[in-house]
Amino acid sequence: TIDERRFRDRFDEFNEIGATDAGGVNRPSLSDENKRARDLLVEWFRDAGLEVRIDEMGNIFGRREGRDPEADAVLFGSHVDSQYNGGRYDGVVGVLSALEVVEAFDDAGIETDRPLEIVAWSNEEGVRFQPDMLGSGVYTGVFDLEYAYDREDKDGNRFGDELERIGYKGEEPCEPDDLHCYFEVHVEQGPFLERADLSVGVVEGVFGFSWMNVAFEGQANHAGPTPMNMRHDAFVATADVTKAVREITATEGTDLVGTVGSVDVWPNAINVIPERVEFTLDFRSYDNAVVDAALERIQDEIEWAAEREGLEYEFEEIMRVDADPFDDECIETVAQAAEDAGCEYTRLVSGAGHDANYLNKITPTSMIFAPSVDGISHRESEYTEWEDVVTGAEVLLRAVNEQAST
Amino acid sequence: TIDERRFRDRFDEFNEIGATDAGGVNRPSLSDENKRARDLLVEWFRDAGLEVRIDEMGNIFGRREGRDPEADAVLFGSHVDSQYNGGRYDGVVGVLSALEVVEAFDDAGIETDRPLEIVAWSNEEGVRFQPDMLGSGVYTGVFDLEYAYDREDKDGNRFGDELERIGYKGEEPCEPDDLHCYFEVHVEQGPFLERADLSVGVVEGVFGFSWMNVAFEGQANHAGPTPMNMRHDAFVATADVTKAVREITATEGTDLVGTVGSVDVWPNAINVIPERVEFTLDFRSYDNAVVDAALERIQDEIEWAAEREGLEYEFEEIMRVDADPFDDECIETVAQAAEDAGCEYTRLVSGAGHDANYLNKITPTSMIFAPSVDGISHRESEYTEWEDVVTGAEVLLRAVNEQAST
Ligand SMILES: NC(=O)NCCC(=O)O
Ligand SMILES: NC(=O)NCCC(=O)O
Repeated sequence: TIDERRFRDRFDEFNEIGATDAGGVNRPSLSDENKRARDLLVEWFRDAGLEVRIDEMGNIFGRREGRDPEADAVLFGSHVDSQYNGGRYDGVVGVLSALEVVEAFDDAGIETDRPLEIVAWSNEEGVRFQPDMLGSGVYTGVFDLEYAYDREDKDGNRFGDELERIGYKGEEPCEPDDLHCYFEVHVEQGPFLERADLSVGVVEGVFGFSWMNVAFEGQANHAGPTPMNMRHDAFVATADVTKAVREITATEGTDLVGTVGSVDVWPNAINVIPERVEFTLDFRSYDNAVVDAALERIQDEIEWAAEREGLEYEFEEIMRVDADPFDDECIETVAQAAEDAGCEYTRLVSGAGHDANYLNKITPTSMIFAPSVDGISHRESEYTEWEDVVTGAEVLLRAVNEQAST
Repeated sequence: TIDERRFRDRFDEFNEIGATDAGGVNRPSLSDENKRARDLLVEWFRDAGLEVRIDEMGNIFGRREGRDPEADAVLFGSHVDSQYNGGRYDGVVGVLSALEVVEAFDDAGIETDRPLEIVAWSNEEGVRFQPDMLGSGVYTGVFDLEYAYDREDKDGNRFGDELERIGYKGEEPCEPDDLHCYFEVHVEQGPFLERADLSVGVVEGVFGFSWMNVAFEGQANHAGPTPMNMRHDAFVATADVTKAVREITATEGTDLVGTVGSVDVWPNAINVIPERVEFTLDFRSYDNAVVDAALERIQDEIEWAAEREGLEYEFEEIMRVDADPFDDECIETVAQAAEDAGCEYTRLVSGAGHDANYLNKITPTSMIFAPSVDGISHRESEYTEWEDVVTGAEVLLRAVNEQAST
């Protein structure tokens, strides 16, 4: 079983790094705080007797060999990069649960048949460098290493350079070796478990999603003497598209969600008609065809808005992940583990993207969700009851134990 | 008459300061570039034998005494602060025309009855520090000096501190002394003169306007797992209000214009529902009742948008200027001057705010407009034909000459 005290102490110590006044953490991908978090993690992995490997993408692995030298490994973990001023649970819960699970086997003196390998993936959040899930994306062959290195943050810093700067550009090739299956514990980041008053979610799959960069280019001009019918206002078109996102997501009977999350306006002055706006779109559904349809509709809306206002526009899909159900056997393993742990659970799908989604492409995968209070995530007030965090780790322990015996 | 060559040389030399690659200038209020522009101006004022005074607001005056020691002065000028990456004509044309006018009297050896005083007002643009026309606003008693000093830019720099930093916090009280009337040459910044193929506009008054800061505060949350009906998206409400501005300005039969020019989103991340948006509103009309009605409607729209989306909102009018017709006699003086200069002109009202609007509160005032090519302003491609700039100065010369004889 999980050592609750040690788990809690580590969780608290870990979240002192980059702690914000409002109770969250600020450890965006490859920042100095992210480096300190990685350093502490590596120290703990070593203290636990794990063999540590850092790969070319900065993914951090810790391995505990099994009895059978031929057997493939059970891999489990999550990520330790955060949103800008994000929460203390997102990602951290999965990585520290994984560490507790290997320690639990040590404490009980149990040698598993298969090797156990735990992992912290690089750049899961995708807020500093897009796209998200970049570390697991390269690992699973979705992206090239060079593509990943060339990603730039808003200030033009390259991912590859920043990885080197913080000392986490490892030597190991970023590719799978001997994988048997993958598990990940994560906070739900949505309202369903809390509403149903359940402590565990058995995750059957992850929403597909599309991320887009859109730019409108009009003409700056004076907000006073320029008549309304002579304007080419890039922000008015952005408002049109934002309203269209709400209309498209209101389509009956779909699980589609859509968001305009990032918006930058030039020259951004009170008395100047906006010349240029760059903004992002995020559409998600568990039905890939629904995402396709939303994309088609929003491209029309962008075109119409540009036409009405007399603007140029650019439209680029920077990320597309298909919805892909997890592996049946792994789902059943997690469900059985939840049963064995004596907790009430439900099966659900995830609206948030996870490294598990990419892992599922190359190895049988499932996830374990812990409830999010008020469904809040990507915010400093993100919170999960501690007993639910521990329950998640208990379920992971049982699922890993099941899959680790050949 | 105006010395075209000297005028042009000065115009070009002046616009080397803060010149941008795209042919504009970047000399926002109290920036280092604004200081360099002021320094050059003061040097030229002194070279022209003018008595230079800098007041507590950094307004720069240059005085040429008249024959009659008892007579009030004819004041004329404009401003030399620019938009961020703004045009070369906005403000500069008025200040350098004023300098050419006094030099023309010198060249001709003419002593006027009244003193001539030329002026460059501080912080006309209102892009770095709001509100605009701050220098003339304090001078005419619209704002307190302390209020002006306490204005802050987006980085929290105080106007008073920045004024001191660039060495333009003068000793002279910022208040009128002996004023007979005020004239200002400016580029139109709108399309009317060019469309009518005229070289001079006789300005009968300035649109009234209202500037507002609006903030919506909702809840950041994850763009994936948060269902559409659980969102409190501050940007969706901003889009609603932006669309409402377009509807309100589409009201038949009014000259109302409305603009959302500056928009800042927090946390501004692709996969986070916008928690907070701060944006600006600018409404203008020559009919004060029309601005009042727009304000009332937009406040309702803000309230409804906040209600629909479940947000808090703040609404603050940071600036209100009433439309106020200029002085009949000064308007006639300008019209006669245009006639005498042999040019085709029309009477019009200004959609842009001007220091002249405040001066009109304390002394008879009118303005002279030069046509703006394509009606473009507040942008690097702002352009006025050089012969039209010279014509504007010629008209100013005649208007000043008329009013300078008691
Ligand atoms: N789980 C999570 O927050 N992932 C970040 C990527 C996304 O789903 O937007
Ligand atoms: N003339 C001019 O550009 N004034 C700036 C203030 C405004 O009208 O917005």
